[in-house]
Formats: sequence, C-alpha cells, structure tokens
Amino acid sequence: MTTVRELAARAKAAARRMAYATGREKRAALLAAAELLEQERGSLLAANAEDLRAAREAGMSGAKYDRLRLDEKTLVTLQAGLRQLAEAPEVVGEIEAMRTLPNGLQVGRMRVPLGLVGFIYESRPGATVEAAGLVVKAGNAILLRGGSEAIRSNRALVGLLRRALREAGLPEDAVTLVPTTDREAVLEMLRLAEFIDVMIPRGGDALIRLVTEHARMPVLFHAKGVNHLYFDQGGDPEMGVRLTVNGKVQRPGVCNALETLLVHRDEAPAFLPRVAEALFAHGVELRGDEAARRIVPGMKPATEEDWAAEYLDLILAVRVVPGIDAALDHIARYGSHHTEVIVTRDYQRALRFLREVDASLVLVNASPRLNDGFQLGLGAEIGISTTKLHAYGPMGVRELTTTKWVGLGSGQVRE
Amino acid sequence: MTTVRELAARAKAAARRMAYATGREKRAALLAAAELLEQERGSLLAANAEDLRAAREAGMSGAKYDRLRLDEKTLVTLQAGLRQLAEAPEVVGEIEAMRTLPNGLQVGRMRVPLGLVGFIYESRPGATVEAAGLVVKAGNAILLRGGSEAIRSNRALVGLLRRALREAGLPEDAVTLVPTTDREAVLEMLRLAEFIDVMIPRGGDALIRLVTEHARMPVLFHAKGVNHLYFDQGGDPEMGVRLTVNGKVQRPGVCNALETLLVHRDEAPAFLPRVAEALFAHGVELRGDEAARRIVPGMKPATEEDWAAEYLDLILAVRVVPGIDAALDHIARYGSHHTEVIVTRDYQRALRFLREVDASLVLVNASPRLNDGFQLGLGAEIGISTTKLHAYGPMGVRELTTTKWVGLGSGQVRE
Repeated sequence: MTTVRELAARAKAAARRMAYATGREKRAALLAAAELLEQERGSLLAANAEDLRAAREAGMSGAKYDRLRLDEKTLVTLQAGLRQLAEAPEVVGEIEAMRTLPNGLQVGRMRVPLGLVGFIYESRPGATVEAAGLVVKAGNAILLRGGSEAIRSNRALVGLLRRALREAGLPEDAVTLVPTTDREAVLEMLRLAEFIDVMIPRGGDALIRLVTEHARMPVLFHAKGVNHLYFDQGGDPEMGVRLTVNGKVQRPGVCNALETLLVHRDEAPAFLPRVAEALFAHGVELRGDEAARRIVPGMKPATEEDWAAEYLDLILAVRVVPGIDAALDHIARYGSHHTEVIVTRDYQRALRFLREVDASLVLVNASPRLNDGFQLGLGAEIGISTTKLHAYGPMGVRELTTTKWVGLGSGQVRE
Repeated sequence: MTTVRELAARAKAAARRMAYATGREKRAALLAAAELLEQERGSLLAANAEDLRAAREAGMSGAKYDRLRLDEKTLVTLQAGLRQLAEAPEVVGEIEAMRTLPNGLQVGRMRVPLGLVGFIYESRPGATVEAAGLVVKAGNAILLRGGSEAIRSNRALVGLLRRALREAGLPEDAVTLVPTTDREAVLEMLRLAEFIDVMIPRGGDALIRLVTEHARMPVLFHAKGVNHLYFDQGGDPEMGVRLTVNGKVQRPGVCNALETLLVHRDEAPAFLPRVAEALFAHGVELRGDEAARRIVPGMKPATEEDWAAEYLDLILAVRVVPGIDAALDHIARYGSHHTEVIVTRDYQRALRFLREVDASLVLVNASPRLNDGFQLGLGAEIGISTTKLHAYGPMGVRELTTTKWVGLGSGQVRE
C-alpha cells in the first residue's frame, strides 16, 4: 500500500505545478468539478448512503448523523460554491506596493500559494469539496484526512475532484485523500514538515490538542467560541434583545453563537427581565450570577465553569458587571478570541471595546453570528482562525496564500 | 525564585497594557532607552567586559567571541536604531480596506499587536536591544532568553530597557529576561502557549530544531540560507561576476550570502574562468561538478553534500546546468527558501524565475546580500523568516503585528 509519506511527496510535487497554474486552468478545474457533482450525483449519494448505513449500525444518531448526510440540496450548494470560486478574482501573482529603493532596485511583495495544505477534519463530507475548492483556487495542493464515518463519501468526492483536475490539465495529486483513518495516519501526517507547509485541523477539542501538540509544521486552527455580548450602560434595549436572541438562538450549535451575556448593573433591572422573557420563549436556559438571579428568579445559578463554557446549546450564562472595565476583564479572562460584541450608544466606549478586545472579530451593535467568511464578504471559508499569526478570523482564498518578496534589479550589490 | 511561568504571566499582563499604549508613550520609551544607553555606557561596557572575561576563561575565541563584544560603536548604532524606531510611523490601529456590506455593517481589518513574543537567541547582546525595540514599537511584550555567555550584558541591557518603560509610564514587565540559561528554562518557555503568542528562535540548527519540535505555540524562524545564483544563457558576464563576488565575499558568515553558483552550459566556457579568477583573488575555494572542473581545473570536486551546504565561509559550490528548468529543479531540491538570484537579459526567463522560485526573496540581477530588513526599507528586523506563514522574509515592526476584524453595526443580525 502507498504510505502517507509517499502520498504527501506526490501531493507536494503537484503543489509545485499548481503554484503556476493559470487562472484559466484553475477556473476550468473548478467548473469541471461543479459539473461532475451534478453528473455523478447518483454515485455520490450511493456512496454516502453506505456511510449512513454503517453509521446507523454503529449507533450514530442526532446532529452527528445529520452532518454526515449528503443530499441533493447540499450538492447544489456545493456546486454553487465551486462556480462562485471559479469566477472570483485571481489573487496569486498580485504584487502589493511595488516601490523603488534608493539604489534603483524595485521591490514588492508577490502573493503566492502556501504549497501543500494538510487538512484533518471530522464528519461533514461537504467540507471535502469546500476545502479542496479553496485550496485549488489559491494555487495549493491539499492532503485530506477525513473521519472514518465519511470515508466512502470522501473517496467518491475526491475521485471526482481529481477527475476535474485531470480534465483541466492539472495534476490530480493536487487533491489527495489519505485512505486510512487510523490515528497513526494522523500522527504520520503531523511529522511530514518537509512536505506539508501548513496543517489545518477542523474538529473538536481533542483533535485540536492532538494536532497542536504533535505538528512539526505551522498550524492554523479555530479553538472554541466562548463569545460574549456586553450590554452597556445606556444601550438600546430593543437592539440588545434582538442581538442576544439572534446570537443564541439562530443556530446554537456553531462556534460563532453567543455563550455569555454581560449586562451593566444600571441596565440590569429593566433589561434582564425583557431579554430573559424573549430567551425563555425560545426555550433557552439561563444561568446567572447572584445579581442576575435576584432580578430574574427563573435563572439557574452559574458556576465558575459556566463562564468558560462553550455550550453549543440553548443555554446562556448571564453576569451583571459594574462597568466596561469589568466587562473587558471578564472577556480577557474567559473569552476564546473568537467573536465579541458590545451593544452601546456611547462613542468612547464603542471605540475602547473595538481597540482593547482581542478577538478575531470585534463588533459594535451587531450579532456575533456574522463572524463567517460568507457574511464578511470573503466568499467561502475553510475555517475561522483564532490563532493570531497569519490569519485571525475567517480563512478564505487569500488566507491560503502568503507573500514573497521579489526584486527587479540592474546589477545592485550591497556596499 | 520566580519561575519562568510566573515571569511569562507577568509579561503577558504587561502585553495587555502595551496593546493600547499610545504612539506617544511608545516613542517616549524608545527615546528614553536610547538616552540610557548613552548615560549608562560605563556600566554596560563593564557588564560586557565580565562576559568577555568569562568567555575567554572558557576558551571562547574567533567569530563567536567577537559577536559577544559590546563597544562604543555598537552602542551608538543601537541608539540610532532606537531613535529611528521612535520616529517611525505608528502601525497599530491602522484599518485596512474598511468597507460597507450589503446589510450596512462596516467591516475592516485593524492592525493589532501579537501579544507576548518569546525570543530565544544566542550570543550577540545587541539583539536584545533590537528585538525589544521592535516589539515595543509594535505594542507587544517580550520574554527574552539569551545565551549563558551574554547573561551579564543582557541583564544590564534589560534593566535599562525596563527603566525606560517605567519612565514612559509603561509596564516594565513588557521587557522581561528569563534569568536562567539552562535548557530546562527553554523547554518550559516552549510549553507556555497560554501566555506566549509566538516564539522566535534565532540561532543555529540545533536551537531551531529544539524549538520547532517542542513549541506548543506558533514559531517564526529562519532556517539556514542555501542561496543560489543562476547565470542564465545570454546573461551579462560582468554583472554575473560582480553579483557572485558580492554575494560570496562581502560578508560570507551570514544567512543571505551566496552558497551555490549555477551556470548555463553555453556560458560556462567563457564565464566560469572569469568568475573563478575573481573569486580566487578573494581567496574563495570552489567546489565544482565534473563539467565545471573540466573548464576550471583549480576547483575541488563537489559531492552531494556540497549542494545542500550552507558554508558560511569562503567556499562556493559550482554546477553547470543545461538550462533554466534544471536550475529551477536544483533550487527546488536544495534551496532553503531564503534568497535566490537569476542573472539574465531574457524577459520571459526573468518572469518565470520570479514566479516559480519559492523563496523569501527572489531577485533578478541583484545580489542576495540585499535580503535584509534595512536594505529592503523595513527599518530594523528581528530576523528573516523562511516559514511561509504570517511572515516570509525580513520581519520588522509590521510582521510583529496581526490584524483582527472590526465591525461597526447598527443592529445587524444573521437572517
């Protein structure tokens, strides 16, 4: 059997060719992939049905089982995503701020691909297509290692993506699936720094920990989203209720959902009953500190663990704070650098919150659910990075590239 | 004794304050540091003299001993660097490309500090001042761990930098020295991902390997510079000789020096004797492949190890290649992504070299010695990154920051 190392070496060789693929070649590959998703619908859904049957037999159910499912609607969305990427502007080769140095050397930064991207992810087979599409657009190659439960779907999807690359005259190894799903294959990938330029893990805490501890190459990941909304003194209560409800209820199981509400103590007596009523109507459980529970007796008591919790569920922690300093301290202590919101009418506190909060997206008067590549106008995303280096926030095509310096000289030397 | 962990926690707390230090505060701190370098010259040189005595007693000599020395001239250069940084434009708080989304939300990317920078470095005490200056300008804090041979000099310099921060009303813990120089202190630093946002090692291969293997946080480093100059078919021989000599001879012991010369076979008969003569005149030893040695018998034979060698010495490997494809293959195989040069008159091959070579600086018709923050107009540098993520090439103030997304809303939610 081909080893993971051999697969990585081949994918890396393909990356070298992808780096100078023209925009036209990449467009052809992405459009061919969209076309094949349509044509091969039957065999894709059949492969997925096998994964689903195996999952049921293994006792899988609920949200995890739902995420595993590919259906006509998902395929249509994936096709649309590929076509959108195909037509998006080319970023590779852009030169930022070319300028002439005193010695006449013209220098600038040219946007170039990263090389080979390692992608270790759990469950959802749609991620296979989204990640491969972004990586191809950025001129990279990708080595994918999906979860065992989706292996048949992933094999079928990767087969099709490779066919699309061939049809466009690009190397099929630019999209390579690691066919084994054991832990050893992951550990082997994490050691291959000579081939893999960046590792992107997408999954639960245990996966992220495994990857950050063992990876020899740079890692881009998103940790959990322990996201806060601070309702400031004098904030608009109607807006506060609307953003809190949208943040918590619109889709509670995702990383940009709201997990903790901080309320200024002067506003708590009027605001808390109002927001609690709206949240209770949506079936949200509230866990408050003492001050909050004196105002809304229907809350359960919050413990220290609640401040650090990413519930991913219809539960919200609530705390009354004496002012913005306490809110900033709370966020610095318990936040996970993902998404933080202030609802305010005060100019100075709005600016202070924007400047001082360290998170991938800091919002004034808007829902945390907007932290998403598509919502922020990047197109698709491969994840939301909460690492500060290289990319902080949603990662689209641009975040899958880097810049190198280029210099056009006429014989300049160092004196 | 204070543990490394406690020092890191304090430095991290200082980083939070530094993140919103005003440009005026940072300027005051940098100018105060320059002033103190002048005033405290006597005690600094005395501390350095103790390091030098201990080094001599331990049998240190040559280049390593020279690098350890602080003298009046070095102090003046360091002062000038700090003053230049003090007056350089502020980058923290810049917002790139703010734009309004269809829902009315204004979003952009705000440049913000990285937080706490870990810096593990060997020998040269001047690096203490340069690194601390850049980090302060970028609004970060720094935890420094220098080599044991420079510990007295580093203590004196860090004491003075902390005094400058205090005088400017900034927290002195923003520049913190780990006072022990054992390996265990390094390993402890590498585990402190909760406090240290990025680790920058600067030193030999063994240090880089230790850090990349054990660090739990992102690492920015420069590996060795195995840099090539490809003399293309039809290139200007006079320019080829000048750039080769400058690349090899001007300062052979540094990472942007030239290590391998690749010559197009049609040019070899005329060019090689000419360049060899110039290099021999500078005492350079040449190690060539068979084809090169047939033309210049004074060369020693090159082995496989020579193609991968970073000599850092007056030695140059020489290979004759059949064309640009072979040159690109050689560079892809043996290069270290640092600095690569083509000497050519051909438009298309110049562009192809620029596009296809994967290195932090790719040059047409200029010396590799120009890969340097100061030469490229960035001001000072903390190192030259050969990691592709975040920073690729010289790292100045800007490379010690990141961007977070900020959004100014008026009640936007996700539908």
